[in-house]
Formats: sequence, structure tokens, C-alpha cells
Amino acid sequence: MQAAVPPFSDDDRHWMREAVDIAHQAIGLSDPNPRVGCVLVGDGWQVMGHTQAAGSAHAEVMALRAAAAAGHDVRGATAYVSLEPCAHHGRTPPCCDALIAAAVGRVVAAIEDPFPQVSGQGIARLRAAGIPVDVGLLAAESRELNIGFFSRIRRGRPWVRMKIAASLDGRTALLNGASQWITGPEARADGHAWRKRAGAVLTGIGTVRDDDPRLDVRLVETARQPLRVVVDSRLEIAPQARVLQPPGQALVYTAQPGPTTQAFDPACVEVAQLPATPAGKTDLAALLADLGRRGINELHLEAGHRLNGSFLKEGLVDELLVYLAPKLLGAGRDMAAFGPLERLADGLDFEFLDMAPVGADIRLRLRAVGRATF
Amino acid sequence: MQAAVPPFSDDDRHWMREAVDIAHQAIGLSDPNPRVGCVLVGDGWQVMGHTQAAGSAHAEVMALRAAAAAGHDVRGATAYVSLEPCAHHGRTPPCCDALIAAAVGRVVAAIEDPFPQVSGQGIARLRAAGIPVDVGLLAAESRELNIGFFSRIRRGRPWVRMKIAASLDGRTALLNGASQWITGPEARADGHAWRKRAGAVLTGIGTVRDDDPRLDVRLVETARQPLRVVVDSRLEIAPQARVLQPPGQALVYTAQPGPTTQAFDPACVEVAQLPATPAGKTDLAALLADLGRRGINELHLEAGHRLNGSFLKEGLVDELLVYLAPKLLGAGRDMAAFGPLERLADGLDFEFLDMAPVGADIRLRLRAVGRATF
Repeated sequence: MQAAVPPFSDDDRHWMREAVDIAHQAIGLSDPNPRVGCVLVGDGWQVMGHTQAAGSAHAEVMALRAAAAAGHDVRGATAYVSLEPCAHHGRTPPCCDALIAAAVGRVVAAIEDPFPQVSGQGIARLRAAGIPVDVGLLAAESRELNIGFFSRIRRGRPWVRMKIAASLDGRTALLNGASQWITGPEARADGHAWRKRAGAVLTGIGTVRDDDPRLDVRLVETARQPLRVVVDSRLEIAPQARVLQPPGQALVYTAQPGPTTQAFDPACVEVAQLPATPAGKTDLAALLADLGRRGINELHLEAGHRLNGSFLKEGLVDELLVYLAPKLLGAGRDMAAFGPLERLADGLDFEFLDMAPVGADIRLRLRAVGRATF
Repeated sequence: MQAAVPPFSDDDRHWMREAVDIAHQAIGLSDPNPRVGCVLVGDGWQVMGHTQAAGSAHAEVMALRAAAAAGHDVRGATAYVSLEPCAHHGRTPPCCDALIAAAVGRVVAAIEDPFPQVSGQGIARLRAAGIPVDVGLLAAESRELNIGFFSRIRRGRPWVRMKIAASLDGRTALLNGASQWITGPEARADGHAWRKRAGAVLTGIGTVRDDDPRLDVRLVETARQPLRVVVDSRLEIAPQARVLQPPGQALVYTAQPGPTTQAFDPACVEVAQLPATPAGKTDLAALLADLGRRGINELHLEAGHRLNGSFLKEGLVDELLVYLAPKLLGAGRDMAAFGPLERLADGLDFEFLDMAPVGADIRLRLRAVGRATF
């Protein structure tokens, strides 16, 4: 018997790691397109590229341009791409055609494209052109980086990440509403880095009234601002609310026709009506579907205990991003209003992904059990 | 100019690390005596020992006995001890005299004895006998292992560690009282390892009524059971309560003379009256002082939200040991009942010591800010 030859070499692993690493530079830039990196490796040279803003070049084209700019002959080179090269004409020509035209010698892809109808077509086109393609190296990492893209394509809705900043005893504010600041500046900056990842940042009218947050990305650099979304079932938001001001766009979801929308600046504020629940609230599943149609990959929730409770009760939260400060506050506002439950087994189950110190606080990431199987 | 010679060599560091490591074997054994390790290093040999049960041999004597049993000539050997050798006649003769009699060549001690009136006397006696002594290697580690011993000697009260098992949103039980089990078996076993460290495990009458816990050490092996303490201001505990049954001793603190104590088994249950607060509650500062007099180094609190709140409000909690399960429970019982506060700055400040995954849960350790400076 012959021993199975491992499909990937150490060189393959090294260059795919580089491709996945550079793909991270597309965070805050490429949405709604996926975050993809490409490394072209020739004889004694390598160049890299990553997805640009939507409508601009994809990773493969960026790498090919870099090779051309450096005068490298790409014929026979190996292309490492962290997602299957696209095979369809979107706002840019298909990347698999660009690789075929460049006559690369081999393509290694981390994972297939999640579009059910096109998955594998880029690979098939490359192989039909005589280019060997190997798939499956660092697939989990690439998918994780694009969890929101996979969610939108496969489930038709964004990946929902709920951000909570609380004291160790789970208080997000005192009973009098004081909440600024429970966590420290490092945790707040880290929270902005997670906002930057998201296509949209969502809050509720209660938080707008209590805290008047801006919800933009300020504490880290970004090439684009996420859409800011307010759930405001009765359209009570004041046009002066900071969340509705530039920079960036704002979207107000309401469950009933508002008395007027003229007061909002149409250049940066959209009001959209969604179905109402029997209780007159905005239908949150419909909201997520609408955000999916709008190209939102990751949705970052920064809401109060009532809206948090609603999202959680409906099973719509995929991930928790929790900052805990090393203090106890006693009586105060909860992370999420639901229950009381009758049995412990009725609790909402997550699993810890990772934990890290952030300044004097800690950051915990959890994922709903079995949620990432789409 | 001559470069300063580091006081300790790499060999010193290595052997003192061994001494501190073996000192950990005195956990659950040596209370109320400190956890001390001793390594005797001769020409081509080394032996070790650690503090035994109170009244039995100290670490230095154990190491000397081990050397004798192995036929080693200890004259001129170096003794690494994780705490200054004792100079007083307690239940055993002074260890410094044993080292002098053995004619060791040098003593390295991690840290001085915390007794203000005897600190440094063991060192002085050794030096007076012509034995060089170096002090200060791994002092912090040795002190940390004996934080409760240092607390009792220096502050006259135990080091108070509050253990909490909760959901991520800070719930220790549902509103209907259900709390078994929020955290998993690994976290519960880890909690027993911390009980084992303690001279006493304390709870309140409310928890006895709700959960009827045993509060003994079952899930890890131990040579001794901690004293189990119940705060029961009105002496309402039932003699059948599991916390009052063997193995181990139980102590019930009350704030008023009980109607009768005859129902309790005097062989394993003591009822002690403490001063009452104006509200008729047991004076918790007096309670800690009494436990200090009884030789309790570390006190492990496993109480409900009311008693937890009382200890916290009075600033009597030195350390938090918190297990968080990856679940949300919504409405339920809090970690600690106090407040509502008026300002965030009035919160109780701790700092994170460490965090670790324990089974599916996580364990967080925190220390009250500036508390360990005694």
C-alpha cells in the first residue's frame, strides 16, 4: 500500500497563511464583498493583494496588477486565494478568467464560494482551462473571517453579534441609567474595531433616548462607516438624534407609517417600514432579512436590555461580544430582559470562543451552540 | 566600577522554585500553619520536605529527616526554604535550631516570617551561628501561597475569598431558586479544590434553607475538612441540616442567644454568639476576627446574594472566584444584593488576577484593589 500524499506542502501552508492574513486588510473596506487575500508566488518572487471596496478590484486582480507593476512573469506561478475565484460578472469581470488569461500554473483556494448556484464554478473553469486547483487549506479561518458573508449568502440574513459592556455582576447601567463608562478606554476602542467589521450597527429607540449615541467608528481608523440602524417601532426618533447625523448613513426601521418623514435628511437617513408583530413591535426576523437584502454581512448590536431580550428570545443572536469590567455595581440594568424561566435547561446556551484581557477589563466571545453550521 | 553581583544564582532560582512547588503539597494539610517547602541540596544530592499537619514536623525537619533516611551528610549543604525558619517553640521545636544543629552551610529563604514580633529572628539566629542567609527569592510566590496566613497574622482576620457560580448575565439562580447546576462538573470540582485551600467554608442560613448544601470537600482529595460556618443571626438552623453533619466540624454564628442548643451534636457542632448590628444581624467584622483567633487563614464564602451583599458592602471581601457558564438566564437572582448606587464611581472595584477555561465554563479571579498590601 502506498501512503497517502498530504495534499498540501509546508510552502502551501505558509503562503495560504499569508493570503488569509492579508485578507484581514479588507475589513472595513470590502463590504458587502467578502474579505479575500491572494498571494502569487513565482520563481523567487511573490506579490499580494486583497479585496478592495465594492466595485473595485478583487484580490486576484490586485495581485496580478502588483506582479505586472513589479515586472514579474506570472506564467506558471501559483495563486493562493483565500476564497474560490469568482466565476460571474458582477461589478467586475470574473477573477477565474483573469487567472486563466494570466496563465498561472496552479491555484490553491482555501474554501469554495458559498453561493449555492455558483459554488465550484470558478474551480471548474480553471480546471477546464488546464490549471490544477487544490481546495481546502485554512478553510475554517477563511470562513471565520467571512462568517457574515457566508451567513448572508446561505441564510439570507447577517451574522448577528451582540455587544455588551457590563460589570462583573452583569450590570450594563445603574438603575438611574448611568452607564458611561463601566468599561475602560481600551475596551471601548476594541468595541469600535468590532463595529468596523460590521456592515451595520443597530440599536433601539430606548438607547437613542437614554444615551443619544453616535454609533459610528471613531476610535479606530476605517475606510467606510457602517450603516447605523435604529429599531423605532413607533417612529419616535428626533431628527436631531446623533445617530442620524453624518458621517455615514442611517436607517430607521418602523412598524407603522410615521406621521412624517420630511424632517429627516433624505441624503443620509432612510425610514423603512417593516411588518409589525401582534404586539406592535418591529418584526426582527423580517428586519434581518431586509438587512440581508441590503448586503449587510455582519450586524453589530449595541442595544439595551429590552431589545437585546427580544433578539435573544427569538433565537436571532449568533454571537456575544462581552466586555466585563472588574467591578460590582449591585442593583442595576440587566444585559438582556427575558424570563423568568422555569427551568435552568431553558436558558440560552452559548459556548466560549475565546477570552482576552483588554486594558483593565476582559473580553469574552461566545457563539450560540451549533449556530455556525450553515 | 564593579558590576553588582546578582544575589541569587540560577541554581538558587531552580531550587527555590522546587521548594515553593513542594510547599503546595501542604494545601489541605498544614492549616493553620503556613505552607512551606524546604529543599536541602548537598554535593550531588537533594531532598525535600513540606509542612505536615499542625503539631507535626515543619518543612525543614521533614527535609532533614529525608536526608538522614537517605544517608546524606547535611553538613555544608544549602537549605532552600520558602518561608523564614521559625525561631520559637510552638508545638514543635524551632526549625532554625534544627538547621544550626545540622550544620548546614547556607540558608536561602523566600520571605521573612510575617509575625511582627518574630520576623527576622530565625534569620538572625542562623547568622549568629555563622550560617550565611539570603532572603527574597520568590518572595511574592511564597506570600501568595500563604496569603491567608499572612492575612491572619498581619490583619488578625482571614483572607476572604468569595466564590460565585453564575450565568454570563450574572444570575446565580432562577427566580424560583433553581441553581443546580448552572456551571458544569469541572467547575464544581475546581470549586472544591478552592474549598480545600480554605480553613473554613462559610454560608448563610438562607442558602442552608434553600439548597441544604454539605459544603465539605468531596470532589477532590483532602487530608482534612475545612470548618463549615453558618451565619444564622436568629439561630434558625435545623439540627438535621447537612452542613452540620460529619465529616468535619461545623460552627454556627448567631447574634442572639438561641432558644436551645441541646439539639445540636456537641461533638461536631459549636454555636457561638457574636455581637449584633443595630439591625439584629451578625457583626461580620467581629465574625472575621473570631475566625482569625480560631486560626482560619483563608475563608471561602459560598453564600447567597444577601449575605454576599453584606460582606461586600462592608468591604470585607478580598478576592472573587467567579465561575461563569456560557449561558444567559434572564430574570433571576443576583450575585450580590446591594445598591442601587447613585454613581458608577461608587461601584466596588477589583482587578483581574487571571482567567481560565474550566470545562465549558470559565473561571475568573479578581482581587480588591490595593487589598493585598498588608
